Amino acid sequence: MREIYLDNSATTRVYKEAADEAYSAMTEFYGNPSSLHNKGIEAERIMEDARKKIAAALGADGGELVFTSGGTEANNLAVIGGALAKKRRGNRVVISAYEHDSVMRAGKYLSENGFDVVWLSPNERGEITPEAVFEAVNEKTVLVSVMLVNNEVGAVNPVAQLSAAAKRKNPDTVFHCDAVQAFCKMPFRADKLGADLVTVTAHKIGGPKGVGALWIKKGARVLPLHFGGEQEKEIRPGTEALPLIAAFGKAAEISKNSLPEFQKKMEELRNLLLDGIKDEPGILLNSKEGALPGIVNISVPGIRSEIMLHFLESRGIYVSSGSACAQGAKSHVLKAMGYPPERIDNALRISFGRENTPKDVEELLSAIKDAMRELCR
Amino acid sequence: MREIYLDNSATTRVYKEAADEAYSAMTEFYGNPSSLHNKGIEAERIMEDARKKIAAALGADGGELVFTSGGTEANNLAVIGGALAKKRRGNRVVISAYEHDSVMRAGKYLSENGFDVVWLSPNERGEITPEAVFEAVNEKTVLVSVMLVNNEVGAVNPVAQLSAAAKRKNPDTVFHCDAVQAFCKMPFRADKLGADLVTVTAHKIGGPKGVGALWIKKGARVLPLHFGGEQEKEIRPGTEALPLIAAFGKAAEISKNSLPEFQKKMEELRNLLLDGIKDEPGILLNSKEGALPGIVNISVPGIRSEIMLHFLESRGIYVSSGSACAQGAKSHVLKAMGYPPERIDNALRISFGRENTPKDVEELLSAIKDAMRELCR
Repeated sequence: MREIYLDNSATTRVYKEAADEAYSAMTEFYGNPSSLHNKGIEAERIMEDARKKIAAALGADGGELVFTSGGTEANNLAVIGGALAKKRRGNRVVISAYEHDSVMRAGKYLSENGFDVVWLSPNERGEITPEAVFEAVNEKTVLVSVMLVNNEVGAVNPVAQLSAAAKRKNPDTVFHCDAVQAFCKMPFRADKLGADLVTVTAHKIGGPKGVGALWIKKGARVLPLHFGGEQEKEIRPGTEALPLIAAFGKAAEISKNSLPEFQKKMEELRNLLLDGIKDEPGILLNSKEGALPGIVNISVPGIRSEIMLHFLESRGIYVSSGSACAQGAKSHVLKAMGYPPERIDNALRISFGRENTPKDVEELLSAIKDAMRELCR
Repeated sequence: MREIYLDNSATTRVYKEAADEAYSAMTEFYGNPSSLHNKGIEAERIMEDARKKIAAALGADGGELVFTSGGTEANNLAVIGGALAKKRRGNRVVISAYEHDSVMRAGKYLSENGFDVVWLSPNERGEITPEAVFEAVNEKTVLVSVMLVNNEVGAVNPVAQLSAAAKRKNPDTVFHCDAVQAFCKMPFRADKLGADLVTVTAHKIGGPKGVGALWIKKGARVLPLHFGGEQEKEIRPGTEALPLIAAFGKAAEISKNSLPEFQKKMEELRNLLLDGIKDEPGILLNSKEGALPGIVNISVPGIRSEIMLHFLESRGIYVSSGSACAQGAKSHVLKAMGYPPERIDNALRISFGRENTPKDVEELLSAIKDAMRELCR
């Protein structure tokens, strides 16, 4: 059976060219980047080359790009490490209520450890507004965290305006932006985003699982979450994941170069999907106007997500009910957006990737229609 | 020029078979292990298969094997997470003074955060004794951390006896053992070691850099260092580094199966090296009798480590002055062993791996002799 993978916001297939880089870093350039001899220097060069490629794709001039084990660790380093680094300045943190679990739970950890966390709800367009940020920030606020693109509905937040609002109210506030779902999916420059800390990861852009990075703007500071050698300027010690880093660099380079073509393709697929469902009675679109075209969240009336997931799977079509990390738990994102319980229970996230074709969307549409006929009598 | 890599305690070349596993996990079995559809289940199966192979190689029946980004993170999870989990029982921690930087600095973090850390020095054989552990543990002790094999001199500690001594004094003490340099290098079973927490990593045994694991014995508990999804039972959240985990599993399987042959080879190479230097006037052996044969630490009189490293490098021979993670800093290990400053300044760590041959050792010996003639006039 042909597989139709429409879960690209969960993870993506690694580019062959990126996997090749990882392979040669394992079998040929296998030195430890911290070793002082040639074999180490060779490894370090590969790592720094990858760092440059990622920084270039991210538009991150100045500051540091620190490698982590992925988006989750980078988000924790930003939220917990960023708040703890400014603990003496205040104990208030402002976080949007529909962040990825790694930011949500880092915020929860802070709230259990002496911080006062303010959770911001998105407005009716599914976006966090500058007004809400301005309102929430006060003289005790040390950190604000709002994602660039929401991972379940694709909502795109006006991060530059949010950061400006936060800093207008309190110039001393550090702004963190989880850009995992935006990196190489839409054009932006980290150094023009107004954020001090920006999270990215490899496995959403054709790189491997297990590596991410936190960009730390010059002047911003985070405390490390763990300790050891002098790697990554002691912000994130431990022997670096060289094979993954090399592959991440390559994936960022390819993805960045093919961004215009990728965006065009995402729009085409999204439009095809929306056209196909607009005449189906009852299908609800949970993604709002202006969302990233690669992520389309819908609810099919009367069919719970798990049921639909399995129906589609029986036809080789893979989608999800929300974030993979939450493994089937009720979506806090859709809840924060104010949707009623039944609509949340019936939600499907369809997320496109570079390998998808219009035919994939047609087969998905036909399968959804069959499901509605067969399962909702 | 032929390369002679004698720095296998810093890192190793990845087995081709292990790199192949990583490759297919990137390009073919690229699902997210947390996804509920087939593509995710397929990925999860690969991950659990790797976990079983590593647990088998480690002799870790029962308990959990939790994947981390490497030895450094696993050591921090054990030392910081293990101590914090028992904070209510007491605030004393006992750590040997020649641990890897990741344990040393995790201990330092604890000492700066309300814990009283007792540092144990090795005896004249370079080992931590049960008597020293018994002496140091008291009713407030929550954690003891002593490595199985020291990374710079190869000293092998009697961990089962150390753990017994600790628990005789205070049955409530958690025992952590960093087994990074012992795993698949000498026969031992984690579940017979007497340790509650055992750290291993992939890149010292022909697996890739960027993945390690902490074995947590049934009943033992650690607090997570960061937060997010439900991966690794929430002890270590974040999308798992599937390509590295798959390769780690394969490397553990191969290494475990070839252990007897590997040990024989290490002894042969070590004996050849020791025979070759025993008649050289002034060369001092810093590794003691009983040390793991794969690690030989020597000091060459009158030649500082960096000078010797570069001399050897000019002949394509790669060794180190100590831990790669410490990047040329003065060795705290040799200091803890009581060696005088000059001997420490002149130290070289030669660490053998599966690809080394007697010819490599002969060329090393001849190069060292040349260095002594050319550099020490």
